[in-house]
Amino acid sequence: MNTSAASTPGLAGPALARLIDHTLLKPEATPAQIEQLCAEARTHGFAAVCLNPTHVRLAVRLLRGSGVAVCTVVGFPLGADLPQAKAFEAAEVVRLGATEVDMVLNIGALKAGDHALVLRDVRAVVRAARAGGALVKVILETCLLTDDEKRAACRLVQQARAAFVKTSTGFSTAGATVADVALLRATVGPKMGVKAAGGIRSWADAQAMVQAGATRLGTSAGVALLRGAPAADAY
Amino acid sequence: MNTSAASTPGLAGPALARLIDHTLLKPEATPAQIEQLCAEARTHGFAAVCLNPTHVRLAVRLLRGSGVAVCTVVGFPLGADLPQAKAFEAAEVVRLGATEVDMVLNIGALKAGDHALVLRDVRAVVRAARAGGALVKVILETCLLTDDEKRAACRLVQQARAAFVKTSTGFSTAGATVADVALLRATVGPKMGVKAAGGIRSWADAQAMVQAGATRLGTSAGVALLRGAPAADAY
Repeated sequence: MNTSAASTPGLAGPALARLIDHTLLKPEATPAQIEQLCAEARTHGFAAVCLNPTHVRLAVRLLRGSGVAVCTVVGFPLGADLPQAKAFEAAEVVRLGATEVDMVLNIGALKAGDHALVLRDVRAVVRAARAGGALVKVILETCLLTDDEKRAACRLVQQARAAFVKTSTGFSTAGATVADVALLRATVGPKMGVKAAGGIRSWADAQAMVQAGATRLGTSAGVALLRGAPAADAY
Repeated sequence: MNTSAASTPGLAGPALARLIDHTLLKPEATPAQIEQLCAEARTHGFAAVCLNPTHVRLAVRLLRGSGVAVCTVVGFPLGADLPQAKAFEAAEVVRLGATEVDMVLNIGALKAGDHALVLRDVRAVVRAARAGGALVKVILETCLLTDDEKRAACRLVQQARAAFVKTSTGFSTAGATVADVALLRATVGPKMGVKAAGGIRSWADAQAMVQAGATRLGTSAGVALLRGAPAADAY
């Protein structure tokens, strides 16, 4: 525990918890592990649980009335699916009760300059999710992009009326960096959501991401991270 | 080049090439890279190209009349999607001209002993693919499974009438091993297809997998691998 952080400005524990998407996306995750994830999310007052589509029905049942959202992923983690397949899965998970959908954009299309396909792909998911009252976060996979590509992606995601841009899947070569979160925030302006995800392991990491402009944090280390709060913190 | 391999019994270059799924599944792959992949597959007489759904339409156009199949992936690489979403995407890619579909089974369901869900999931994809005349390979992700789980998965895949069991996605903690290929072959018997994938980089790797019982090899190193053929080989 870094007690010197007690003097650092930053969110208190409960406020930080309310920004966390408590995440378990391992392919081998079992229903028993999802039950634990949901119980922890309820205890700590996390924003959401973030899990694979196969677990949505269970999580919705466990979290009814808790104030914790059920977030799932679509086209994950490669983003190279057909737009209609992403939209179909988004509609299905929302029908099952998910209220947040984290999709991966078509990274190859972005790199090839096919902005029309990137836009059509995100729009298809946003429409499907919105029809069921769910919001969409769009993962850019920043570690694979140049800064120009990150900015172009942000503009396309905004144009498609998604709610958030998100840095990373956590399954590629690197996760969120403070510099990328700041770049995303500067590009999308103050109103849109920015989710930092991938590699956020400590209280200090989390505070740094928030300082850089993140309004949501995706991490599988939420519980341990909160235990690292400075002693002076109320949490 | 390991010239001592010249005396090892094994397939000659062209016969080996006909077992290879020439693979490019990186999320950042561009259409230009897919064009190169398809040209190489045509030149070397590979069994198939294996690429993400977003590239199926292009590959089908480029490979018409070549004898090289277009293989794509569904529920990839996590396998934790909804059965109806996997089946929907399978139907769509087959409609676009893919004739082989590599799906990932629901690994968490297998680990939790929910064999009914594993079976239902594979069956949904097999039905969707078969309706369009395509065959299905089912990825077990052997590196995440115990030997008992691998055997149970093989039996379920056989029951669902898929054409192949496949070892690995290439995106998890490890790829194909000779021991796993032998285990899969022993479990499914002599008639079903066994695809080894993940980490197959050399001529010797490829021959060892075939010796262990593989009838298809997934690799992104097909061209380099064939260059490593022993000098005595006709290829």
